[in-house]
Amino acid sequence: MTTTTSVPLGTRDRLVRTASRLMQHGGYESTPVKQLAKEAEATLGSLYHFFPGGKQELAVAAIGHGDQEFAGMLAAGLASRTDPAEAVEAVAVMLAEALRDSDWRDGCPVTATALESVGRMPELQAACAEAFANWRRLVEEKLVASGLAEEESRDLALTVINTLEGAETAAQVDRSQTPLLTAGRHLARLLRSYAGTR
Amino acid sequence: MTTTTSVPLGTRDRLVRTASRLMQHGGYESTPVKQLAKEAEATLGSLYHFFPGGKQELAVAAIGHGDQEFAGMLAAGLASRTDPAEAVEAVAVMLAEALRDSDWRDGCPVTATALESVGRMPELQAACAEAFANWRRLVEEKLVASGLAEEESRDLALTVINTLEGAETAAQVDRSQTPLLTAGRHLARLLRSYAGTR
Repeated sequence: MTTTTSVPLGTRDRLVRTASRLMQHGGYESTPVKQLAKEAEATLGSLYHFFPGGKQELAVAAIGHGDQEFAGMLAAGLASRTDPAEAVEAVAVMLAEALRDSDWRDGCPVTATALESVGRMPELQAACAEAFANWRRLVEEKLVASGLAEEESRDLALTVINTLEGAETAAQVDRSQTPLLTAGRHLARLLRSYAGTR
Repeated sequence: MTTTTSVPLGTRDRLVRTASRLMQHGGYESTPVKQLAKEAEATLGSLYHFFPGGKQELAVAAIGHGDQEFAGMLAAGLASRTDPAEAVEAVAVMLAEALRDSDWRDGCPVTATALESVGRMPELQAACAEAFANWRRLVEEKLVASGLAEEESRDLALTVINTLEGAETAAQVDRSQTPLLTAGRHLARLLRSYAGTR
């Protein structure tokens, strides 16, 4: 029993991880479902077995996977420093290094798909919105823990995530760490400007 | 002679504008070349006449069109206030209003395509990089004109554009003006924090 159930579970997991990676590298639309199955070493039949809704249902699961993966990296970065300004700058440096190490390919696992989904694929759009909201929550918790007011922390977390997202896109397109490193410095400065209001 | 040349010129222009709008609404990959020609009221033959390189060559022209269109809006917003912090906040408000008025569809004409192009379509990636660089230059000029040092102005312009880009994506996905309005406030605060260093 263990053996027979472990095989399909492995297939599902491979499908989700492969979809997540392909969507990170070019978005949802650039990934034909056949290529997806092939790269996951799965049959189209097993893809529709696990995801009766097909590519879009698989994409929703893949966004959930990318959400968790990025949240793990973000949480580790934020925990690496006590001071929230230093912590956010450390996250930016981490992202810049990960991006360069992947030859500028491993950007945000959500943004490209998010933009493709807007007004066209509501369930996928909702999954992307949920991912962004989760990441903001991690930053917000860090800011609140440092003594910043709740409303200010929520607002700043929104800008921290959005600035890092925009800088990551620019870093990929320009093949340069500069946009992320600069964003990290500016975000740290912005956060420090609130230190007196704690 | 005037009549016969004006028809093909009109067709080329329609193809570029249609491609730009479709790419703004879902990226490059989601727009099949046949749909593109159809929506531009052009034949596939005329598309390949004007763009022998096909969809990708048309996409490069469409990014150039989106670049200029957005640059016009950005320049107008920046010119609407003397103070650069107020000017950048005014741009954010303008973007938030344009986005809501388009039912959250008319986001950045470049970002979705930029992310799809990274490492996969070098000419398209270069066109997107050029657009971002042009927009930064407008912000940089505004900051330098206000008396800020050149290096600081260049760095800040990078973060201003990236923050607005990231906030625009979040605004679209969340169907909310908040990300852009919050980004505008935070960018104004960041810019003001440099006022003393002029």
